[in-house]
Amino acid sequence: MTTLSPPFSRALILGGARSGKSARAETLTLAAAAGGTAVYLATSEAGDAEMQTRIAGHRARRGAEWTTREAPLALVEAFATETRPVLVDCLTLWLSNLMAAGRDVAGEGDRLADAVAAHASPLVLVSNEVGMGIVPDNALARAFRDHAGRLHQKIAAVCDRVELVVAGLPLVLKPQGLQ
Amino acid sequence: MTTLSPPFSRALILGGARSGKSARAETLTLAAAAGGTAVYLATSEAGDAEMQTRIAGHRARRGAEWTTREAPLALVEAFATETRPVLVDCLTLWLSNLMAAGRDVAGEGDRLADAVAAHASPLVLVSNEVGMGIVPDNALARAFRDHAGRLHQKIAAVCDRVELVVAGLPLVLKPQGLQ
Amino acid sequence: MTTLSPPFSRALILGGARSGKSARAETLTLAAAAGGTAVYLATSEAGDAEMQTRIAGHRARRGAEWTTREAPLALVEAFATETRPVLVDCLTLWLSNLMAAGRDVAGEGDRLADAVAAHASPLVLVSNEVGMGIVPDNALARAFRDHAGRLHQKIAAVCDRVELVVAGLPLVLKPQGLQ
Repeated sequence: MTTLSPPFSRALILGGARSGKSARAETLTLAAAAGGTAVYLATSEAGDAEMQTRIAGHRARRGAEWTTREAPLALVEAFATETRPVLVDCLTLWLSNLMAAGRDVAGEGDRLADAVAAHASPLVLVSNEVGMGIVPDNALARAFRDHAGRLHQKIAAVCDRVELVVAGLPLVLKPQGLQ
Repeated sequence: MTTLSPPFSRALILGGARSGKSARAETLTLAAAAGGTAVYLATSEAGDAEMQTRIAGHRARRGAEWTTREAPLALVEAFATETRPVLVDCLTLWLSNLMAAGRDVAGEGDRLADAVAAHASPLVLVSNEVGMGIVPDNALARAFRDHAGRLHQKIAAVCDRVELVVAGLPLVLKPQGLQ
Repeated sequence: MTTLSPPFSRALILGGARSGKSARAETLTLAAAAGGTAVYLATSEAGDAEMQTRIAGHRARRGAEWTTREAPLALVEAFATETRPVLVDCLTLWLSNLMAAGRDVAGEGDRLADAVAAHASPLVLVSNEVGMGIVPDNALARAFRDHAGRLHQKIAAVCDRVELVVAGLPLVLKPQGLQ
């Protein structure tokens, strides 16, 4: 990723599985940090030993410029008062946590969009594109991909930069006309 | 969607589940209608109560500038003589209806492409991108996504505007070089 | 596909099922051949009668400007010393063959990326985008799409042209700013 992106306030980085979306989001967040520290907001829970090992590995890989926090459900509360650049990884896992907890996902999505729109410091949100395959047999999977699609539209509408990452390379969706 | 699109004659709007493709297509069709009425061609059938409720909801949401018609199978006949701008929503459901009815889907796709190419008034066709996931286990699902991919190529070839909508934002595939 | 692409050395052409990626790759490879012959490297095996029939059909369709070879596993060896333009179709099938044979897919991917980077003649590699659907239930399918995503990133990094083909139309991912 040699292309330097223009300044942004709020960015949504979409991509398929292993598309390089998280690495792209880290690059954008660190560029916004400009040598200072950034906050990594993991929506996964360090509930079991396997996840703790994975999170420890992520911390080691990301290095000292990152402060890592977990926000499996209370995502808005976790970044609202933060003034350093924040990377949220990822919205699809957060959505999955909300559904498992029986929350009002549409309402939570609206609340997140409002908080993103109101946030004054650089914010980068990562999410998985999951809606371009065959309609799943499973009703829960269908509900999940519908919720994910609606959430992406809401968040994209309040971001000034939106990218779809494919094979490690960003396609710029917003602002239009830019690559 | 603040970017105004250039004039077009025939547009294919692709997108994943809940990507905002229908809203984008409505915007383009109404822009072509320029204050007049437009025709909404639904490929779903109002066969059961649930679908009738959904279609009634769609009519209410779309408002008075739209005339709604159903064309689950006879799609070409439904728009061929229409002079007002037409929105077809959506081709994947039409394909599904053709397969369920045991029709020659390749032949019907060719006939649709010919009718689209020959159509003199603005025409916007919506379809789901379904081919970017893992190969489905189910043989019918594999056949469906192969048919959908071939149909999209045929229709894209006779349109002067083709977009892939992601998170409510259009990526312009045709004309190339435009965003 | 009327737009002529600029010269390239190594191209990765991604796309969903029946997206037109192979036809696009054939066009690019023949343009690089400039009237001479090109090599078609099939990663499928002519193991059974059905596959032999399909390969015979492909040969007939592609015509006399192509020399067809099979490389289900030893892909690097098949193109390394070739000076004519080479089309590899496709990497996802090669990955599937590697997994079935119990090979070290990450190591083989690195070896392929090195060979692509070192190759002096035009090389076009086709692969399926498989990571934009719902997470598969099946563990093998999840492993496959993770491997495919990582492989695409590795190969894209050493290519000077990367495209995502949708409905027969190429979205240019690299070089950025070009369409």
